[in-house]
Amino acid sequence: MHPVIAQRFPSPLAAAESGGVPLAADLREVEHRLRATVSDEQDSFLGKSAFHLIEAGGKRLRPMMALLGGHFGPDPARAVDAAVIAELVHVGTLYHDDVMDEATVRHGIVTANTRWGNTVAVLLGDYLIARAAEIGARVGPEATKLQVRTLRRLVRGQMAETVGPAPGVDRIGHCLRVMADKSASLFAMSVRLGAELSGADPTVAAALERYGELLGSAFQIADDILDIAAAETTLGKQPGTDLREGIVTLPVLYAVEDNPALAPLVLNGPLTDDDARAEVLAVLRVSTGLERARREATRYAERAKDVLHDLPGVPARDALVALGDFAIGRTS
Amino acid sequence: MHPVIAQRFPSPLAAAESGGVPLAADLREVEHRLRATVSDEQDSFLGKSAFHLIEAGGKRLRPMMALLGGHFGPDPARAVDAAVIAELVHVGTLYHDDVMDEATVRHGIVTANTRWGNTVAVLLGDYLIARAAEIGARVGPEATKLQVRTLRRLVRGQMAETVGPAPGVDRIGHCLRVMADKSASLFAMSVRLGAELSGADPTVAAALERYGELLGSAFQIADDILDIAAAETTLGKQPGTDLREGIVTLPVLYAVEDNPALAPLVLNGPLTDDDARAEVLAVLRVSTGLERARREATRYAERAKDVLHDLPGVPARDALVALGDFAIGRTS
Repeated sequence: MHPVIAQRFPSPLAAAESGGVPLAADLREVEHRLRATVSDEQDSFLGKSAFHLIEAGGKRLRPMMALLGGHFGPDPARAVDAAVIAELVHVGTLYHDDVMDEATVRHGIVTANTRWGNTVAVLLGDYLIARAAEIGARVGPEATKLQVRTLRRLVRGQMAETVGPAPGVDRIGHCLRVMADKSASLFAMSVRLGAELSGADPTVAAALERYGELLGSAFQIADDILDIAAAETTLGKQPGTDLREGIVTLPVLYAVEDNPALAPLVLNGPLTDDDARAEVLAVLRVSTGLERARREATRYAERAKDVLHDLPGVPARDALVALGDFAIGRTS
Repeated sequence: MHPVIAQRFPSPLAAAESGGVPLAADLREVEHRLRATVSDEQDSFLGKSAFHLIEAGGKRLRPMMALLGGHFGPDPARAVDAAVIAELVHVGTLYHDDVMDEATVRHGIVTANTRWGNTVAVLLGDYLIARAAEIGARVGPEATKLQVRTLRRLVRGQMAETVGPAPGVDRIGHCLRVMADKSASLFAMSVRLGAELSGADPTVAAALERYGELLGSAFQIADDILDIAAAETTLGKQPGTDLREGIVTLPVLYAVEDNPALAPLVLNGPLTDDDARAEVLAVLRVSTGLERARREATRYAERAKDVLHDLPGVPARDALVALGDFAIGRTS
């Protein structure tokens, strides 16, 4: 990895705008629409509490992907619906993830499950996903079909992660499948839906979906690396969250493969003891696992960029290439 | 209430078939489709565990409603999709309900949350709802719109029940709104979707939706009454489940209105002590609350039957009238 890449794009927005497609105004419109959608609810508690995690912010990567997808068609403004749908589904799944992981902090604020209990948090997630489905139903049957397929993959991926690999199943293969279904699927949906709604050519939309699928895995591996390697100041949360929650990520599996003595420390469920976790993190940071995961993330990002070669040479294509570089640049 | 009505229809199927529309064969087809849909899943744990509550049975009231709705159009066979969608959504919400209520037994078998934990149970519910959405998306945009609207009402109703009435809000009004959103909405969807898919006239489909909405509330109030008044042998589970789970139902609210001394016993959350609950049940059984709730359920059922007056005089109409009678007949 060349550290210059990481410096070039201080944020995903900087990367996404580097192609010459201005996105800030459309992203403000997405923020506005997210708020308007959620608060349009007769149950005032539901309307207000669903704001919780939307207001907390986030990188809005999926809306950016949707908006950029929209620049491959004649009517890019229509991709705003795709961006809103993508972020509603994403934040909805975060509410559910935090219940399942018993997380207490997300984006620097207390989680909904900690504040209002698991039942409310699950319902907030359901609510956002239902609202996204409502927009999809208004937009058209193709949007619904894509959303429904994605929803099924999200459920399948989360279930596979929760249940873990069956005995005898390769753990790394299982981890990659979980990643594809649980993370990459939503990236794939975002950019494809943006393209479809803007009237892009169907073969272009299909290629963009493939790009999103590959880029989503690159981003996820990068996140998994950062959870081990990054400083708390960079990360905005304590590193080692995955270890604490018993989530087994790709860099950890690579490290175990190269050093089986690590297995009992990292594969036996949540590592809740702070000192033990700090020790394991120190070992993982100097392990071969991190470097192997970086190479894997790079491979995904390169494959994502390869898909773009055959697409029309619009500025949005350069932006998507830059997002691929940004995904990888963060990890070095 | 005339006890003869209750004797006339020993089961909802007997009531539904009393109009001369045979439903048993279509219901077998629905069972087959439910199983085929759920097991069509590459994740074998997900496919198998999602069977859990489908295999446990249930009255299949919503599929019956959907099938009967289908007899108002030229192509009743197409209502099978509506019946499958309705039951998948229903069973999906049961998985979620059992997590929220911390229930351990449902339909005589151990609940999914008890067997596999809350995370798995929530995902099983999500999975069934996603599969229902998939069928809806295949069937057409109108089905999706109706499903999405219903989903939003289900979430809103469950959230309102979880959060409880805001200070100063009439508890009975709140309870009726929860019932409409959480229970009646799915009855309304079932019969309307069956009618729509079979090609029924839109005004007929809309009237049937109204019928379903009213009948759904009648059934829910009847369930609430039975949870207080029925014997364990009739009910198939211990009576007093709602009290034990801290769910405040309409007959209880009526009883409290007539006898405010009951309030501290039944409005302060779960009544987990068996002896205390048995005492409260004994008091409720001789309270005015039961009789007032019976009258309210009858009013809903009568209003439901009134809606049917203006509909074409097909045999399915008689069947829907009979289902109204059945709903009430159970409570006397």
